[in-house]
Amino acid sequence: MSSSSSPSGYALPHIQKLHGYTPGFQPKGDGWVKINTNENPYPPSPSVDEAIRAALGGSLRLYPDPRSEALRAEAAKLHGLEPEQVIFGNGSDDILNLLVRAFANESSAGYLLPSYSLYPVLCGIQDAGTVEVPFDRSMELPFEALAKLDAKILFITSPNAPTGVGFSNEDLARVIESFDGIVVVDEAYADFAEENATELLVKYRNLVVTRTFSKSYGLAGLRLGYAMADRDVIDVLDRVRDSYNVNQLTQAGGLAALKDQSYLRAIAAKICRTRDFYRAEWEKLGWFCYPSQSNFLFVEPRNAAGECGASVAQDLFEFFKENKILVRYFPSSPLTDSFLRISVGDEDQMLKVSETIEKWLNNV
Amino acid sequence: MSSSSSPSGYALPHIQKLHGYTPGFQPKGDGWVKINTNENPYPPSPSVDEAIRAALGGSLRLYPDPRSEALRAEAAKLHGLEPEQVIFGNGSDDILNLLVRAFANESSAGYLLPSYSLYPVLCGIQDAGTVEVPFDRSMELPFEALAKLDAKILFITSPNAPTGVGFSNEDLARVIESFDGIVVVDEAYADFAEENATELLVKYRNLVVTRTFSKSYGLAGLRLGYAMADRDVIDVLDRVRDSYNVNQLTQAGGLAALKDQSYLRAIAAKICRTRDFYRAEWEKLGWFCYPSQSNFLFVEPRNAAGECGASVAQDLFEFFKENKILVRYFPSSPLTDSFLRISVGDEDQMLKVSETIEKWLNNV
Repeated sequence: MSSSSSPSGYALPHIQKLHGYTPGFQPKGDGWVKINTNENPYPPSPSVDEAIRAALGGSLRLYPDPRSEALRAEAAKLHGLEPEQVIFGNGSDDILNLLVRAFANESSAGYLLPSYSLYPVLCGIQDAGTVEVPFDRSMELPFEALAKLDAKILFITSPNAPTGVGFSNEDLARVIESFDGIVVVDEAYADFAEENATELLVKYRNLVVTRTFSKSYGLAGLRLGYAMADRDVIDVLDRVRDSYNVNQLTQAGGLAALKDQSYLRAIAAKICRTRDFYRAEWEKLGWFCYPSQSNFLFVEPRNAAGECGASVAQDLFEFFKENKILVRYFPSSPLTDSFLRISVGDEDQMLKVSETIEKWLNNV
Repeated sequence: MSSSSSPSGYALPHIQKLHGYTPGFQPKGDGWVKINTNENPYPPSPSVDEAIRAALGGSLRLYPDPRSEALRAEAAKLHGLEPEQVIFGNGSDDILNLLVRAFANESSAGYLLPSYSLYPVLCGIQDAGTVEVPFDRSMELPFEALAKLDAKILFITSPNAPTGVGFSNEDLARVIESFDGIVVVDEAYADFAEENATELLVKYRNLVVTRTFSKSYGLAGLRLGYAMADRDVIDVLDRVRDSYNVNQLTQAGGLAALKDQSYLRAIAAKICRTRDFYRAEWEKLGWFCYPSQSNFLFVEPRNAAGECGASVAQDLFEFFKENKILVRYFPSSPLTDSFLRISVGDEDQMLKVSETIEKWLNNV
């Protein structure tokens, strides 16, 4: 090659135009209240540390189990499925990527707006076409638009992000029945919800349900997620999957987490109590907040003058940041630009959030 | 969808036809001499365990550093590069996959035969065309065929697998200079070799060098690998990369391993001594064995009657297996079907290999 031209010119045309996914801001230094990426404020089950310690010591020289069989068996048991209906990934993002690679081509991936912002990024890497189906302010599923959707795979985040709104199985079933393709119900936040879609797997062979260990299990740093589906779909995903996608320590730690369901339930219940308390508090201030079935709240702040809107939300976002509180602001759409997404922190963190809101309202 | 048809019918046509990569056989139960996947017989640096233990305890609830910055900085220091010239992956397989996704389309990926069997698998998932350039029995680079290669990306395993033959920088430079596209020199086994291609990075902006922690570092179970290249190439790969591809514990453990270069060098030297000893032993038996710059030997066994060939190799392969020794046999090509690939084990393992060969020759 000529030494003057950049070797990035050899990249495929769609890759050259690509913008990567922007992960949530990771602050450097201490003292931050980091409630911007829906991490769990509590540590994972103590059995996770124990299992990882036990897995250390020499066996790291060997490749991990390529199929994460123990994890598949345990997840299958938990959900009343067969192990052949489960696949594990290096985070659920890995699984979502496999789904795009296996099912999405020129004109075939649908998703709702707003929902998890990774779907268009994965489609961009794949050079797959996308169809965006907008919510309206109700943030309920737009059945008519979904029924007309021309796509081969549809991603639904439920409970949705960044709104926190959960969709009933009845509503999901209505979409799945009318859709001629794969429906992915991305249940990253299902452990904080009233219902989940796993029971629909018996009836709908075109349904894929995905889960993550990054939220309710408090294991974002370990990278683990899974999908449940018809065994033929799992077989397809296994063919696209990297052979050793889940490392040994993550397999060991994830298995321990999966087995400690009582810890999971206790932590999730605690987060839901905090969530519901603060939603009620903010409603007392006259702030609109979507009913949340997740570990975050999507709230439309009003300033001291009773105004809401994009500039108000942005103002509070900046004020939080000045006070070392990181939340998430989504300015790109009128459906989201007057809101802030606030992950449910622990009691100290939420107290600081409350105090900061009070300061902001009092303009101190 | 109709309930009678399989949902796998929604998969893209090339995915439906796909066969996944077959990872090396993982025996269940104890007592096996497992020298079939080029794992390190020795444990990783003790500092790896320490670093992982220190990384446990609560922070797993947080997402990992999305860019593995500490690893990039340390690898850059080690190789005399800038951190912007390095990218880390969930194993070097992750990196190879990113390379295929960024640079390979309908008719663009070239690789040598035999070499690492993952390249065609990754191209199959991508629906990329492939051009296979065969070695001859010399197992030296076929310059003429490579100069005529019509491809946008070329993968060269050096030292090569399964032969163990290393290519000089002079030879590699000759290929890189004549190639109008990205040349990936996959250096999984570089720490066992006489030379490596990192010094060529200064001169050739279209060169990518990949490394793994699965072999010399003894960390196959941890999943870590990296690539070094021009910063524009790294930037392209970062856009295709999953944001959180390397988990927290792997980042911590990998960093400790990278910092303990004296341990790495000692282990690699020990393996090379064992390798060279057994190559000489087998040559004394009249067996041909390629000069190896890796942690395995590619050897053409002769039976008691002095015969070699596919049936002889297969016979020894089966005899090894009956004696709970797992090696690798590649029956698919006449260039490889009379050989066995034997990973260099520790002294006890290699002694058992020797004794078993003796038994086989004596027909006991």
